Amino acid sequence: MHESAPETLPHNIFGILQSSQRTAALTTAIELDLFTAISESGSSADDIAVHCRAPARGVRVLCDYLCVIGLLQKRLGHYWQMDETALYLDRRSPHFIGDAAIEMRADGPFVEGFQKLTQAVRRGGTALASAGSLAPEHPCWVQFARARAPIGASNGKRLATLLESSSSGAIRVLDIACGHGHHGIAIAKSNPRAEIFAQDWPAVLEVAVGNAREAGVSERYHTVPGDVFSVTLRERYDLVLITNFLPDFGPAECEDLLTKIRHTLTQDGRAVALQWIPDDDRLSPPTAPSLALSLLAETPRGDVYTYPELAEIFRRAGFKRTELRELGSSLQRVVIAHHQ
Amino acid sequence: MHESAPETLPHNIFGILQSSQRTAALTTAIELDLFTAISESGSSADDIAVHCRAPARGVRVLCDYLCVIGLLQKRLGHYWQMDETALYLDRRSPHFIGDAAIEMRADGPFVEGFQKLTQAVRRGGTALASAGSLAPEHPCWVQFARARAPIGASNGKRLATLLESSSSGAIRVLDIACGHGHHGIAIAKSNPRAEIFAQDWPAVLEVAVGNAREAGVSERYHTVPGDVFSVTLRERYDLVLITNFLPDFGPAECEDLLTKIRHTLTQDGRAVALQWIPDDDRLSPPTAPSLALSLLAETPRGDVYTYPELAEIFRRAGFKRTELRELGSSLQRVVIAHHQ
Repeated sequence: MHESAPETLPHNIFGILQSSQRTAALTTAIELDLFTAISESGSSADDIAVHCRAPARGVRVLCDYLCVIGLLQKRLGHYWQMDETALYLDRRSPHFIGDAAIEMRADGPFVEGFQKLTQAVRRGGTALASAGSLAPEHPCWVQFARARAPIGASNGKRLATLLESSSSGAIRVLDIACGHGHHGIAIAKSNPRAEIFAQDWPAVLEVAVGNAREAGVSERYHTVPGDVFSVTLRERYDLVLITNFLPDFGPAECEDLLTKIRHTLTQDGRAVALQWIPDDDRLSPPTAPSLALSLLAETPRGDVYTYPELAEIFRRAGFKRTELRELGSSLQRVVIAHHQ
Repeated sequence: MHESAPETLPHNIFGILQSSQRTAALTTAIELDLFTAISESGSSADDIAVHCRAPARGVRVLCDYLCVIGLLQKRLGHYWQMDETALYLDRRSPHFIGDAAIEMRADGPFVEGFQKLTQAVRRGGTALASAGSLAPEHPCWVQFARARAPIGASNGKRLATLLESSSSGAIRVLDIACGHGHHGIAIAKSNPRAEIFAQDWPAVLEVAVGNAREAGVSERYHTVPGDVFSVTLRERYDLVLITNFLPDFGPAECEDLLTKIRHTLTQDGRAVALQWIPDDDRLSPPTAPSLALSLLAETPRGDVYTYPELAEIFRRAGFKRTELRELGSSLQRVVIAHHQ
């Protein structure tokens, strides 16, 4: 060695270089339907191997690794599910999201964008063709709507509480880029006089309409198919929900969209943006810089905005007043912008 | 939803599905030479952008994410290196391993094996052609020898201490699959009467010989090029080092190799296996199940062995007695096997 060996070793560096094996292990376990093979009283590698039609050796090695990454537990040589895997990765659960989750990560812009990350940093925006994930009717958003449904349902309930929608009376709600639809659906459930107008690509709206039907709010659930930037919004709305959407765009596009939204609002109308809003250092919560990197890889101009940046964009779009609100135990935050 | 939304959300699942972006971010940062761009008194995104010839927007987003994964710190809008990045990822450091690290993870069996992980689990061994990483003279081992040199140098010193090699007198040491060579080199440095015989593929031996030269032990450093399973070992050795090698093979192959090694030992000779040896539950330390999964993906029969399993393999190979030793603050462990 040029100098004596340093005390600090590159353990974090090697850990990071190997972290894609976490994704591979989870994908393989879903493909083998391994979580469905585990009984409520625990299962041995041999039991699981029979169900997965694979040799016990491979199954044992995979299960041990799934313990390391917190997807299984091991006690006395038997494997048990964690709450999260039992709920979301076991086909016997009504909340199973395994297929949608691996579809979303198997190909498409979420993966391809990171394969071209160096080029994206060099150009300051995605190196993918056709605006990356923002290409019209990109199928990735259907997968996304399916995979994110549990988180959406949870945040939807929190949002309905925050907006006190149960006491809002007869309101008309526009849910921009609604995805799974759970934000608007939660408002419809809390307020039987709310009418929801869900906007997204037609294929995504099928997911949302299905969720609205299951929630029993179909009769008050209407659709506005198409591109929100070009679609004509004929109604007047008391509330416009913009959930996890503004970060996909640059500040000028956000301003244009918010101006268009403001023109559809009633006198007392409010626009509500629910998204990752980091502290001013942009580091906290850590999901925010992680999303910012994804947006750099996948979109031309997307970014994560701090509250002062968002407040300025709303102001330029003509809104009179904004306020920043926390969303219960979620680390996402909400900006409420008042038309007047 | 079929039932009311559960309290537990799939945060760990989504975190795992996104973990390959950690590898992508580190690789991109090395490709842009970003760590070399950061001065000792901290640098702004603008400063770094100039050095990397990239727009500040992309650099800022990447740097924030590098903070999240512990490779940078951010204070007052400036980025600082961590000890680990300054030592190993900054080209100005004599310990720089960036190129070797990304080469090792850019392609080759370490990556391709995980792309075929589902097939590997189904067949109980690598789905790669030609024995995966164990194909003769596979170039991955040269990259591995370069990238792992710092860890090898650190463990080499610990091993020399553990074996009390400084007081061993005139000994002949065979270093099996020596890689970077640092285990044998450390013994040569601690004991001026030790002669080292380093065995590995010819291209890997070039790395080891270079390290021996830098350590000033060239005159006592000899090479045994070729495949250890077929090469003729003519000398008698007092010590045979087998570091991070047995796990690449199945138990029968280990037994064959150890039998061959035993025949080369002097009467008082010892074989010393340094490797990841998990507790009997196979989960602790967590690097062990992680390595087991890599070996399943990359090798036909490789696995991680517990101490009882290893002791049994040594016994079948004719060794009289084995002992398990800890390797200082390293979490790797050592089995010392006595010929007589």
